[in-house]
Amino acid sequence: MAAGTTETATSGQSLPAIPFDHARLDALMEEAGLDALLVTSKHNIQYLLGGYRFFFFDYMDAIGTSRYLPVLVYVRGRPDQGAYVGNPMESWEQELGRFWMSEVLPVSWGTLDAVEAAARHVEHLGSSVRRIGIEPPFLPADAYLALARALPSHELADAHFPLERLRAQKTPAELDLLRQASERVVDAMQAVFASHGPGSTKQELASALRREEQARDLTFEYCLIATGRSFNRAPESGQRWEKGQVLSLDSGGNYQGYIGDLCRMAVAGEPDQELQDLLSEIDAIQQAARRPIRAGALGQELYTEAEALLGRSAHRAYTDFVAHGMGIVSHEAPRLIGRRAAPYRADERDRPLAPGMVLSIETTMKHPTRGFIKLEDTVAVTRDGWEAFGDTARGWNRAGGRS
Amino acid sequence: MAAGTTETATSGQSLPAIPFDHARLDALMEEAGLDALLVTSKHNIQYLLGGYRFFFFDYMDAIGTSRYLPVLVYVRGRPDQGAYVGNPMESWEQELGRFWMSEVLPVSWGTLDAVEAAARHVEHLGSSVRRIGIEPPFLPADAYLALARALPSHELADAHFPLERLRAQKTPAELDLLRQASERVVDAMQAVFASHGPGSTKQELASALRREEQARDLTFEYCLIATGRSFNRAPESGQRWEKGQVLSLDSGGNYQGYIGDLCRMAVAGEPDQELQDLLSEIDAIQQAARRPIRAGALGQELYTEAEALLGRSAHRAYTDFVAHGMGIVSHEAPRLIGRRAAPYRADERDRPLAPGMVLSIETTMKHPTRGFIKLEDTVAVTRDGWEAFGDTARGWNRAGGRS
Repeated sequence: MAAGTTETATSGQSLPAIPFDHARLDALMEEAGLDALLVTSKHNIQYLLGGYRFFFFDYMDAIGTSRYLPVLVYVRGRPDQGAYVGNPMESWEQELGRFWMSEVLPVSWGTLDAVEAAARHVEHLGSSVRRIGIEPPFLPADAYLALARALPSHELADAHFPLERLRAQKTPAELDLLRQASERVVDAMQAVFASHGPGSTKQELASALRREEQARDLTFEYCLIATGRSFNRAPESGQRWEKGQVLSLDSGGNYQGYIGDLCRMAVAGEPDQELQDLLSEIDAIQQAARRPIRAGALGQELYTEAEALLGRSAHRAYTDFVAHGMGIVSHEAPRLIGRRAAPYRADERDRPLAPGMVLSIETTMKHPTRGFIKLEDTVAVTRDGWEAFGDTARGWNRAGGRS
Repeated sequence: MAAGTTETATSGQSLPAIPFDHARLDALMEEAGLDALLVTSKHNIQYLLGGYRFFFFDYMDAIGTSRYLPVLVYVRGRPDQGAYVGNPMESWEQELGRFWMSEVLPVSWGTLDAVEAAARHVEHLGSSVRRIGIEPPFLPADAYLALARALPSHELADAHFPLERLRAQKTPAELDLLRQASERVVDAMQAVFASHGPGSTKQELASALRREEQARDLTFEYCLIATGRSFNRAPESGQRWEKGQVLSLDSGGNYQGYIGDLCRMAVAGEPDQELQDLLSEIDAIQQAARRPIRAGALGQELYTEAEALLGRSAHRAYTDFVAHGMGIVSHEAPRLIGRRAAPYRADERDRPLAPGMVLSIETTMKHPTRGFIKLEDTVAVTRDGWEAFGDTARGWNRAGGRS
């Protein structure tokens, strides 16, 4: 929760300060032609409620014949007209002062009662609210249809971009959480390398990483893992890490709502000259991509630098470079990935980077004889350059355990 | 995965056997007038794929400008015409033989490309498929609109009940997972009671329970926790468990896709006679509710027995009894909760219980001076009666730690 408090006219009670830059949100909504927002994704609700995520539905959504659907209403220029519709159990969180808006409605057990309560709130806002931003991938079909029925004279439009851009520049507190998440993920990986060796299965290694992340207060999200000459990164394959083989751990661990997502390499034994050269080349591409990063640089510049080096590589046919924004969501603004894949339809390589943006930078080699070799780093954009989080253990880590 | 394999004509490859009772699903679909299903919820996909849940999106959904949306197509009477649309990374799982259908399409990064691939598959099924069951709370609005556009001559209808009823009677393997989940949750609670005492905050206790569940290979889902005279069950209140006070732990822990959900009580010190009497009364209601349980009994009979006892109680004004089905979802069929709350719109108290159904039975007392006192038990219906899972530690557990 934000530290400050502010008085509200309606209740006389002290409420937490609004935990995001609402003037900036107003400007983004104006640009998108939106009068209000009906926010229903867990990640944007977390952001707009200053880190709040209702604990009961942290992992699951389904309950009864429907599902949990929190709804946050935000009115452009009138944060005092905001509302939050939640589950009845969220009245406990209301008692604890978790919400910045005076209108909190802990009334819904499903999708329909949730949007109906939100629609009643919107109806009372009057005729200045006409065009409402929604999140189509995070608004269930039945809730959407009920909303359209309840608000027949309102227009519903996609609110993705204003919300994503609002989140793109992280505050110092958010940057600290991302630093913590990154450092803890890398630390957990080093613990796994140090305690395992030849003979360990991918499943054992992934389970060990889950435990090491949990021991560091991370919510374990996933572990992509490859060993030997295989490019299959699913944990449950039964495959073993054998002597002399490479091992890649690429994992997402969530610290208080922010994702650490990095990839580190190990080898069971000593790396030979070829392995040293391959990882050095990947590191050089990663470092080249960092070089242009600073506020005002274009996203394209990372690719120009990385691809120049990659273009001269003997391994270019099976090596890929990519960069993408990250934060609450593992791939978010700024969008630097090309248009090939569907959810990356907004290529922002031609937009300037801004201070507080956080980039994930990845160079991936699928080497035909040595296997899957990759580094993924997290780099925050600063006024004059960049700062990398969890920027350790980037060489060949050695197996330490059973050998 | 199911143990057996079956040959398919299309690929010649060996595929896993269909891991659910497809003849029963066909009958339920016939009853509901559905020719095919487009399943998009994680829980039903888990069921229809024999326990599979794609590891990368186990915790999160959002990625890029959209979200993960798996789509499973099932055609009534023609499982050979089934299809699965997943993320490109699920090709690794396909290589590992995780899917029983020959048509696996690991092609989608968002909601739209997912349903468009599913719609193309449906188009090729011909004119016998007209009415398609969907899951409106688990089908995003944009995916629904794209689906309706792509299949203009098909009718889309709610598939909730056939799918929920298919899952209601658990197999022996599912019952074993639910037993494991329940036992591990209760075991974790006992470890927390034994290692904590007066002075511990609710947050410390809930965090300890999370760690104890994770150490038992559970995915921690939530901890509802109350102490003292408060009925606020949110963990992050800063409130401490003080000498002489009651503590309730009510937690969901997930073991390989199945939920253990139980509530157990402890006291910091020795329980006095009043506390002994209160918990005995709650236990008596819980035992009365179990008595009529057997295949063929009506759900209403649990309520009749429990409410008879509750009606004579001096504490009836602040004590509630409830029973509900559970399994992959924490509240599922059979639906024994009344119509008051929205997602429980189908009251099935007048339907006979069947072997393999699993019930959660809860008696909750909000005592004005002693606080929140509750037992929640898990009971599986058998031919002749019932079997309780994790049915230990139901009396007053004692604080064991720092006192």
